[in-house]
Amino acid sequence: MKFCSNCGAPVARRVPPGDSLPRFVCDQCGDIHYQNPKLVVGTVPEWDGRLLLCRRAIEPRYGYWTLPAGFMENDETAAQAALRETLEETGARVEVAAPFSMLSVPHVNQVHLFYRARLLDLEFRSGVESLEVALFEEGQVPWREIAFRTVGLTLRHWFADRKSGAFGFHAGDVAAR
Amino acid sequence: MKFCSNCGAPVARRVPPGDSLPRFVCDQCGDIHYQNPKLVVGTVPEWDGRLLLCRRAIEPRYGYWTLPAGFMENDETAAQAALRETLEETGARVEVAAPFSMLSVPHVNQVHLFYRARLLDLEFRSGVESLEVALFEEGQVPWREIAFRTVGLTLRHWFADRKSGAFGFHAGDVAAR
Repeated sequence: MKFCSNCGAPVARRVPPGDSLPRFVCDQCGDIHYQNPKLVVGTVPEWDGRLLLCRRAIEPRYGYWTLPAGFMENDETAAQAALRETLEETGARVEVAAPFSMLSVPHVNQVHLFYRARLLDLEFRSGVESLEVALFEEGQVPWREIAFRTVGLTLRHWFADRKSGAFGFHAGDVAAR
Repeated sequence: MKFCSNCGAPVARRVPPGDSLPRFVCDQCGDIHYQNPKLVVGTVPEWDGRLLLCRRAIEPRYGYWTLPAGFMENDETAAQAALRETLEETGARVEVAAPFSMLSVPHVNQVHLFYRARLLDLEFRSGVESLEVALFEEGQVPWREIAFRTVGLTLRHWFADRKSGAFGFHAGDVAAR
C-alpha cells in the first residue's frame, strides 16, 4: 500500500481522466503522484590518456569498478551534477567538457549521462562511496570487473573515439538481459 | 506538511546520516524521499525543410507555440518518449534520429532533451493538448510566441545548423531570468 505525500491518505493505482497510464491517485486530496525516470550523471575523467575509475564501496555492485556518477539533484544543471559527483566519489577536481554518452536503462527507470572531463591535478583519493580510485590505460582497464554496462559501453566508446581521432556523442539504450 | 508515501506518517526535512543535502525523511519507517529533476523529451519534426510546431491547449503557456515534448515515463527509453510525445501532441508519425539538444533548466528541476526527427507523412492533427499543429519555414516561425526558451534555443540551433550544412549536438543551460 502507498500513501499520499500531500495528505497522508492511501492512494490507489488507476488511470486519471485524460491520461493514458495508471498513476498513484489520491481520492482524498486529488493529488496525482507521477513516477518518472531519474538521471544518473557522471564524467569520463582523463589525465594524459588514462581514465580515472573508482571501485564501489556501496551496493549495488560493491567492489566493482565504475566511472564517477550519481543521481542528479534538484537545483543543479547536468554539468554541475557531473562535477559534484566526480568530486564526491574521487576527490578529483575536473574541467567538465562536452556530453559524451547518454544511455537509457528503462528496466531500472534511469538515463545515464557521461561528460568528457579533464583532471586538473592528481589530487584524487577515495570518497566514502569508493574503496579505491585509480588511473587506467586502455590495456589496464579491469573489463571483467566493470560495475554497469553503461560504464563499459562509455569506456569502449571513449577508447574507440580516441583511436579514430574524434570524440563524438553516443546515444542509445541498454536493455534488460 | 508532507507525508511518507510508504507508511503515511508525517515526514521532516533534514540531512540523513552520510548525506550532504536535506531530504524528506520518515522517522516512523526510515524511508528517505528523494526529489530529482525530471526529463522532458521531444522532437524537432521536419518535413521538407519545414518544422512542425504545436500551439498549447494547456497551461503553462496556453496559446503559445512549442515543439512536441513531455515528461519521460518509467519503462521507456528517451527515444521512445520522444516518439510517444510527438504522436500524442501532433498525431504525427516520425522517424526519430539523433539527439539534437539537451538543456538543463535548474530553476524548475528539469532537463529538456530534443531529438531530430523526420515526418513520415502529413497526417498530423491537433491532440488534446494542442489548439493547432502546423509546419513552419524559418521565416514563418512565430518567434515572439514561443512557449519556452529551450524550444526557442533548439529552433535557432536547428536553423543555424541547417545553414552550416552539419547538424550537431547542443548542450547547455537555461538560467532563471
